[in-house]
Amino acid sequence: MIALPRPYLVFTGDLRNEVNAKTAYGVRDWAPESCAGQWSLPGCTIDLALPVLTPAEARAKGVKSLLIGAAPPGGALPAHWIGAVVEALEAGLDIVSGLHTPLGSFAEIAAAAAKSGGQLIDIRHGQYERRVGTGIKRSGKRLLTVGTDCALGKKYTALSITRAMQAAGWDASFRATGQTGIMISGEGAAIDAVVADFISGVAEQLSPDAAPAHWDVIEGQGSLFHPAYAAVTLGLLHGSQPDAMVLCHHPTRERINGFEGYRLPTLTQAMELHLPLARRTNPDSRIVAVALNTKGLDEAATAAAIAAAGSETGLPAFDPIKHDLSPLLAQLETL
Amino acid sequence: MIALPRPYLVFTGDLRNEVNAKTAYGVRDWAPESCAGQWSLPGCTIDLALPVLTPAEARAKGVKSLLIGAAPPGGALPAHWIGAVVEALEAGLDIVSGLHTPLGSFAEIAAAAAKSGGQLIDIRHGQYERRVGTGIKRSGKRLLTVGTDCALGKKYTALSITRAMQAAGWDASFRATGQTGIMISGEGAAIDAVVADFISGVAEQLSPDAAPAHWDVIEGQGSLFHPAYAAVTLGLLHGSQPDAMVLCHHPTRERINGFEGYRLPTLTQAMELHLPLARRTNPDSRIVAVALNTKGLDEAATAAAIAAAGSETGLPAFDPIKHDLSPLLAQLETL
Repeated sequence: MIALPRPYLVFTGDLRNEVNAKTAYGVRDWAPESCAGQWSLPGCTIDLALPVLTPAEARAKGVKSLLIGAAPPGGALPAHWIGAVVEALEAGLDIVSGLHTPLGSFAEIAAAAAKSGGQLIDIRHGQYERRVGTGIKRSGKRLLTVGTDCALGKKYTALSITRAMQAAGWDASFRATGQTGIMISGEGAAIDAVVADFISGVAEQLSPDAAPAHWDVIEGQGSLFHPAYAAVTLGLLHGSQPDAMVLCHHPTRERINGFEGYRLPTLTQAMELHLPLARRTNPDSRIVAVALNTKGLDEAATAAAIAAAGSETGLPAFDPIKHDLSPLLAQLETL
Repeated sequence: MIALPRPYLVFTGDLRNEVNAKTAYGVRDWAPESCAGQWSLPGCTIDLALPVLTPAEARAKGVKSLLIGAAPPGGALPAHWIGAVVEALEAGLDIVSGLHTPLGSFAEIAAAAAKSGGQLIDIRHGQYERRVGTGIKRSGKRLLTVGTDCALGKKYTALSITRAMQAAGWDASFRATGQTGIMISGEGAAIDAVVADFISGVAEQLSPDAAPAHWDVIEGQGSLFHPAYAAVTLGLLHGSQPDAMVLCHHPTRERINGFEGYRLPTLTQAMELHLPLARRTNPDSRIVAVALNTKGLDEAATAAAIAAAGSETGLPAFDPIKHDLSPLLAQLETL
């Protein structure tokens, strides 16, 4: 488990590509109260509409860490960004990174951190207790987002549901399982970086015993239908013991993203596969709704996709970004 | 992937408990040609019926490594065994260990290895290429043992089938996925120690493209029904892309070993869950037989268990340790 020093100064290097800055946008959109400012290198075209601050100015305003809000192609830290990280350490900030390369593997960064006493926090290499799952039922209620593929809205759906629950006065926590989610919530476990033997054990720790009416809304990862990542998905599913699953789907995607030989399953196939696996660790687990990612569809196409999903599954369907979630909450209240 | 220096001098410390020496027995039973001798400390009651050799004598006879054939409770190396490991290094041997504690974390062992140039090979911390699965079909044929629980015969079944294939003149390889299996075959990947994101990618590397008639017989791990280890099982299943699965079962075990809240599934339930998951990466995957662990059952009880399994599943059933496997081979020849 990781707890991150906030607020952040969000750093976007010299990026010119919004897709590579998705971590920065995700944190700004979902944790604006944790984002005190933005900082970049000359040439950067990303504007998060946050106050522009140098590390020294940010430190003076109470900022705790520099967040590297970029995923450059390859996931490595570009060499010409190292000076900026060193400058932030010298200004008294910690560094938060979700890149694959550990921050401490750069000699200049390691030396600057040793001198300043700043923490180097690599989210993908985070701390968690390495223990195997127990399969023992925990108190409180849990919702897990699951999906027919990667990268189709499991995190945004979980965040939207958490926000709707909190707005309705419910006792609810978002539980992050990936790097951007962790940066948004300030804590969590990068579940895909866990040694396979311990994945359901870490998932169990992520949503511990809670008050009976408390909801943990757990960010799903991967897909049971994904030829590379299904193991991550199943370990998270077994350890989460969800009372409710929301099935996330992309109505116009036909193939698993990046795996052309693999068709997306139908919603029916997804329901049939998830239920017996989920019920192994929680016999009362059920799929309560379908969340569609209808980004780019107009109103008529969105309505048609929602209607088709509802008709196929017999479940309520919605786009969590476009639609009101109070019907879902009413349904969850009956569980 | 790991390739181990053999033959071994099998070391059993001062063990007095046969269960804790199961690695030593497994290696002796399944790779006798790799076991040149045994060595122990005063007080040990384990006798593998191998020549008793000191490390220096073993080295003179061409032994390449000391194999720590013991799993003491807790999986740690007892402090009073360190001197023996150092003696083996000084005699010119490498060290092979499947314990959780890395050999190099003991200062005396690290120093002795640095001085002798001996390798410290920790199987659970083995090398493999960290890459995600591709889901792309590979040439050659693959059989994977799967099961209703851990520790009921998946390794022994895979080894028995490999041996039967080789005895029949087939081109077949045993593919080890756990520490004892690796020590037996001399290579493999400890799949439960792989970072979750890479588990199917490592499983793909473990049974690479092969000649069309070649069989890889892959040691299964865990169970899809296991509340702690199902993720390991699914990643191995997806990456293995088995043409044939042999379903291993214990006819009298009622509960998942060590998880009292979890019943063993029926064979029917196991078939229903394995097939759709296996067919995701190999649409032609099928369960070809049931392998029962009937150790401790008399002849009549064994026959009754075999008949019940065959009747429930409609598949051939056998105990791979007690029965002739030529009917299975005849069946596999038709795939």
